[in-house]
Amino acid sequence: MKIRELGLTIGKLPAGKKNCITDVEGVRVGHVTLDYPLDEEGNEYACTGVTAILPHGGNLFKEKVTAASYVINGFGKTTGLVQVNELGVLESPIMLTNTFGVPAAAQGTLEYMLDENPEIGDTTGTINVVIGECNDSYLNSIRLFPVKPEHAIEAIKKATTNRAEEGAVGAGKGMVCFGHKGGIGSSSRIVEGYTVGCMVLSNFGRREEFRSFQYTSGNGISETSDGSIIIVLATDAPLSDRQLLRVAKRCGIGLGRTGSHYSHGSGDIVIALSTAHKIAHFADGVTTETRTQVREDHSLMNGLFAAAAEATEEAILNSLSQAASTKGRAGRVVEHLDFMKESN
Amino acid sequence: MKIRELGLTIGKLPAGKKNCITDVEGVRVGHVTLDYPLDEEGNEYACTGVTAILPHGGNLFKEKVTAASYVINGFGKTTGLVQVNELGVLESPIMLTNTFGVPAAAQGTLEYMLDENPEIGDTTGTINVVIGECNDSYLNSIRLFPVKPEHAIEAIKKATTNRAEEGAVGAGKGMVCFGHKGGIGSSSRIVEGYTVGCMVLSNFGRREEFRSFQYTSGNGISETSDGSIIIVLATDAPLSDRQLLRVAKRCGIGLGRTGSHYSHGSGDIVIALSTAHKIAHFADGVTTETRTQVREDHSLMNGLFAAAAEATEEAILNSLSQAASTKGRAGRVVEHLDFMKESN
Amino acid sequence: MKIRELGLTIGKLPAGKKNCITDVEGVRVGHVTLDYPLDEEGNEYACTGVTAILPHGGNLFKEKVTAASYVINGFGKTTGLVQVNELGVLESPIMLTNTFGVPAAAQGTLEYMLDENPEIGDTTGTINVVIGECNDSYLNSIRLFPVKPEHAIEAIKKATTNRAEEGAVGAGKGMVCFGHKGGIGSSSRIVEGYTVGCMVLSNFGRREEFRSFQYTSGNGISETSDGSIIIVLATDAPLSDRQLLRVAKRCGIGLGRTGSHYSHGSGDIVIALSTAHKIAHFADGVTTETRTQVREDHSLMNGLFAAAAEATEEAILNSLSQAASTKGRAGRVVEHLDFMKESN
Amino acid sequence: MKIRELGLTIGKLPAGKKNCITDVEGVRVGHVTLDYPLDEEGNEYACTGVTAILPHGGNLFKEKVTAASYVINGFGKTTGLVQVNELGVLESPIMLTNTFGVPAAAQGTLEYMLDENPEIGDTTGTINVVIGECNDSYLNSIRLFPVKPEHAIEAIKKATTNRAEEGAVGAGKGMVCFGHKGGIGSSSRIVEGYTVGCMVLSNFGRREEFRSFQYTSGNGISETSDGSIIIVLATDAPLSDRQLLRVAKRCGIGLGRTGSHYSHGSGDIVIALSTAHKIAHFADGVTTETRTQVREDHSLMNGLFAAAAEATEEAILNSLSQAASTKGRAGRVVEHLDFMKESN
Repeated sequence: MKIRELGLTIGKLPAGKKNCITDVEGVRVGHVTLDYPLDEEGNEYACTGVTAILPHGGNLFKEKVTAASYVINGFGKTTGLVQVNELGVLESPIMLTNTFGVPAAAQGTLEYMLDENPEIGDTTGTINVVIGECNDSYLNSIRLFPVKPEHAIEAIKKATTNRAEEGAVGAGKGMVCFGHKGGIGSSSRIVEGYTVGCMVLSNFGRREEFRSFQYTSGNGISETSDGSIIIVLATDAPLSDRQLLRVAKRCGIGLGRTGSHYSHGSGDIVIALSTAHKIAHFADGVTTETRTQVREDHSLMNGLFAAAAEATEEAILNSLSQAASTKGRAGRVVEHLDFMKESN
Repeated sequence: MKIRELGLTIGKLPAGKKNCITDVEGVRVGHVTLDYPLDEEGNEYACTGVTAILPHGGNLFKEKVTAASYVINGFGKTTGLVQVNELGVLESPIMLTNTFGVPAAAQGTLEYMLDENPEIGDTTGTINVVIGECNDSYLNSIRLFPVKPEHAIEAIKKATTNRAEEGAVGAGKGMVCFGHKGGIGSSSRIVEGYTVGCMVLSNFGRREEFRSFQYTSGNGISETSDGSIIIVLATDAPLSDRQLLRVAKRCGIGLGRTGSHYSHGSGDIVIALSTAHKIAHFADGVTTETRTQVREDHSLMNGLFAAAAEATEEAILNSLSQAASTKGRAGRVVEHLDFMKESN
Repeated sequence: MKIRELGLTIGKLPAGKKNCITDVEGVRVGHVTLDYPLDEEGNEYACTGVTAILPHGGNLFKEKVTAASYVINGFGKTTGLVQVNELGVLESPIMLTNTFGVPAAAQGTLEYMLDENPEIGDTTGTINVVIGECNDSYLNSIRLFPVKPEHAIEAIKKATTNRAEEGAVGAGKGMVCFGHKGGIGSSSRIVEGYTVGCMVLSNFGRREEFRSFQYTSGNGISETSDGSIIIVLATDAPLSDRQLLRVAKRCGIGLGRTGSHYSHGSGDIVIALSTAHKIAHFADGVTTETRTQVREDHSLMNGLFAAAAEATEEAILNSLSQAASTKGRAGRVVEHLDFMKESN
Repeated sequence: MKIRELGLTIGKLPAGKKNCITDVEGVRVGHVTLDYPLDEEGNEYACTGVTAILPHGGNLFKEKVTAASYVINGFGKTTGLVQVNELGVLESPIMLTNTFGVPAAAQGTLEYMLDENPEIGDTTGTINVVIGECNDSYLNSIRLFPVKPEHAIEAIKKATTNRAEEGAVGAGKGMVCFGHKGGIGSSSRIVEGYTVGCMVLSNFGRREEFRSFQYTSGNGISETSDGSIIIVLATDAPLSDRQLLRVAKRCGIGLGRTGSHYSHGSGDIVIALSTAHKIAHFADGVTTETRTQVREDHSLMNGLFAAAAEATEEAILNSLSQAASTKGRAGRVVEHLDFMKESN
């Protein structure tokens, strides 16, 4: 269950209908979950996956969206941010997977996009794919590369606008957060008619750092894990890339409120996008174009800031409350965090 | 009283002896407070001041310290950061004042440093001064420029290693935080034998955003003020400029935990310094030098991150708990926030 | 004479009518030049000034323009960039002066803007002023602070759309470039119907680094001076702040082509603005606004890049060719660089 | 031949013995070149490769080196920079390949490093690999993914300290520069006893932008190609990561001097490293460490700046002068640029 269904509320803004990143119109999420032994004894185990987040259902290369990225802490291997930062656009799905699955996920995503767009690499240059990652090696045999390019392709194809599954699914399958089972979590907020949606891949924090509740159920693992978190923020509010960056920075507030201090070994990265504009790849002879953006002195901007912080915090908590106890390599188990017990 | 004396504790790390930025050996603080009417009716009022923070008691130009700055939100007029960012050193006091007092404070600081160093601008180039600011125009007649260069010089000369005064003193005289009287606050933490000290100039937040406590005393002002906060972080831990920047970023966690969403119109800026090395300005013929720095994979680094977050949050709360109700221009009064009432 | 009048051409794009930053419609330049002894023997000498560059002739606070800044090398004391970077707008004139004149120029500019806008600091927050600087202490008695606030006000009031004076005028009065007299220089380019104008304050480079010509006239000074350069770029092309930043970065190409290696002690800073949009300060209740921007894949963008590089290089050379030999403090003289002699 | 052997000299500093990045002690380069038809008619062609640059011959994960990256223009897909920027270290070879070969090269490099370091992903976290790329799709059938993981492994294994091959080899096989055959080029400089080496993968510029010589041989292709350049800078001078970043920025000067305006569609990226320190991955219980770094006010720093600019410019010219005419897909040929003809 989402924490909201457990009676816990974060912040003051109302959540969207699905309380999910897919509340932002057009946004799609698809998961491929890998969960099987890699040897007979099960010492090696595929406990991992791929998650695809699509800004819309059309051709992402031909209809790009405005985007920005913000590195809260850069101990991470996310790829694709250099071009997002330079141009302020996203032209591919945002893919999440495990750290060593990045090349395979990049390869699969590239193949998918090339199939859809025969001009790329022939007559029209290249394409930039964005892959975020966390290290799931506590549960997953990451050195054995269970993620393959086809898993990325499958995740993209499965993406729907439904309320996304959360917890130990997709890229979240093997992740650990505050010593308990974490992974995929999502939440959303409504601000003056616009929607802000957040999806996280949570894999950070020591048990004793968890701040929202007095005590945990006590069955979390105590191994210190520097972990990471990837935060994807989507909105239909019309924001320029600079404005999106400003909003993206506020996700760090929500992260900090859960108890994180952005630990040294953590790749804490935000990728933000606005669906308000579709930017055509081909526009022969067109010199200029117009974009709508929020007046930053309007209260909407501060509302979007609060929404980013609140939705991030709640998405992280949902990644915990929604994650079932999970068994991985070397007989290891990471337990579900029982919120009801805590809040009593 | 500091909130700790009121029985409130922030975080897990122990505070230093004075629970003040001056717990970092050598660090000095000096305040000059302006508090008088500027016309007969008192419609115009000097309700402002200058605060000087010195890394050590020696010649700051000739013995520089490692430094870094981090802009949480850049709606601010702080000066001197370009050179701090390029070179990773601080060669002057850090001065705090009101927004329109920046030129006067810069002029005074410059005069003081030139007096101390007759070579500057003659035979040895220039000096970079660092001035942070918040907008105290709710209480202070900022357009009348009550701050003069001599106030900056006086604040530098008055600086001592004592536990610093907090609240409505120095640059904090006219500041407003969460609708109540804010201003200067300080706190410190001890991490594996090193000290992290924080001093803030708090001037941000709407009353209803205040997050740490259920209800406020109710006599805060309701005018929305985008405000600002300047956060000065000092440590004796040996950190490179890049490492200091990493630590400085964690101050935003503490700020977020008080309730701030880094609002649009806020200049939220961190200036961090390490006193571990004194870097000589003159070193004729010396090609290389050695510096000690923390191994970032050591637990100390994460400890410093937590310390920065905790000390910032507590310094902000101290800026509230220590600030007396204050009268300023146009008959306006901003009330002290009564913490005892809150926490009951 | 401008180097173009001497028969030297830089790059391939055509220059504007005045070959000056004032070719960009609306842009205004004003100089105040200080040139007098400060003691009886003339050992101390005011050899400095202030230059004001205005994006347009209206109220700059109420009608802001899009802007960006880029720090090529940050050994400099330029103020106002934090807010320009955060918001992507300029709301004041860009002022140039000597390093220690920054506080006085900031004070004067602030007073001017407050006079024009009685709401600022009373009912509507603050204003961000931008002051660039170079160190003219070889010729100017910089420690004696000859620049006063009223000089800044006067420079703003004198600003016109005429072809600007160049060389040893305004802030350029005491500057030294490649061992010869430098200072103010300007140039412009026309790209697909848009204009790019550049104005520099040149104060960098050792004589032997000068790259464009085989030998110099030989009477340059040999004192190594790390110096600085401030580059102001203006265009009427509709560029977002991110796009302006991209264009601003190309100014470094022109600087490098003159022979500079962006030396350690140099504050090499670009401030860029577009006059295409006037952004209203007051817009009660307006949530969103539209902006026109260049399609970056259009050839115009690469044309603007080339224009920025070419105009910067030519503006630097004009700052030399237009600068008369100048006498300053301690009987020092810096000679005009004779280009005809060189190019023979 | 290198341009220096053709009698052309760039800048004033002396080159190292091999005039190659391998003049920096310990640095190794290995190329794997792919050159064969992919169908019977040869319409599809593998005209590409992989180049590996190793800071030293030891275990790069266990003995990291100081590093920095600088994005001149970010239209590129280089991976690994987020962590380099955060931590200031490099813990893997720097790999160069074509744009769509990045996932395969990343996979191969990862496999190589995991083989060498069985702890990674098991007991000691992850590893960051750095892959730079340019788009060779004019000659290479980039959509068919001719680069495989094993090519990356082979390039690493082949790396030697010999003077590196240049031109149409390794990742340079299919690259085009100023309308002529480009690719791999290298050069070095000696500054006060230290060595600065540069290796580029050149793939940028239109024929008519080439600036160094009056006319080209006329057989360059005229298709505009936005292209890219990856610049790898190595030095044995002891530089902190911040100092390395400063040096890396000066590579853009050399690039600009060849005629580039850092075009919109170009991924112009610098990766810089210093071999002066080997930073141990494992250092149980060690809290602090010392590092030697250059005093930035010493003339050495400006020397290193000039060296970076000069070596980059010369490496680019060597990538042209050393590149043989090359046949690729669709019967396309890109011609060698004949420098002797030009300079007459």
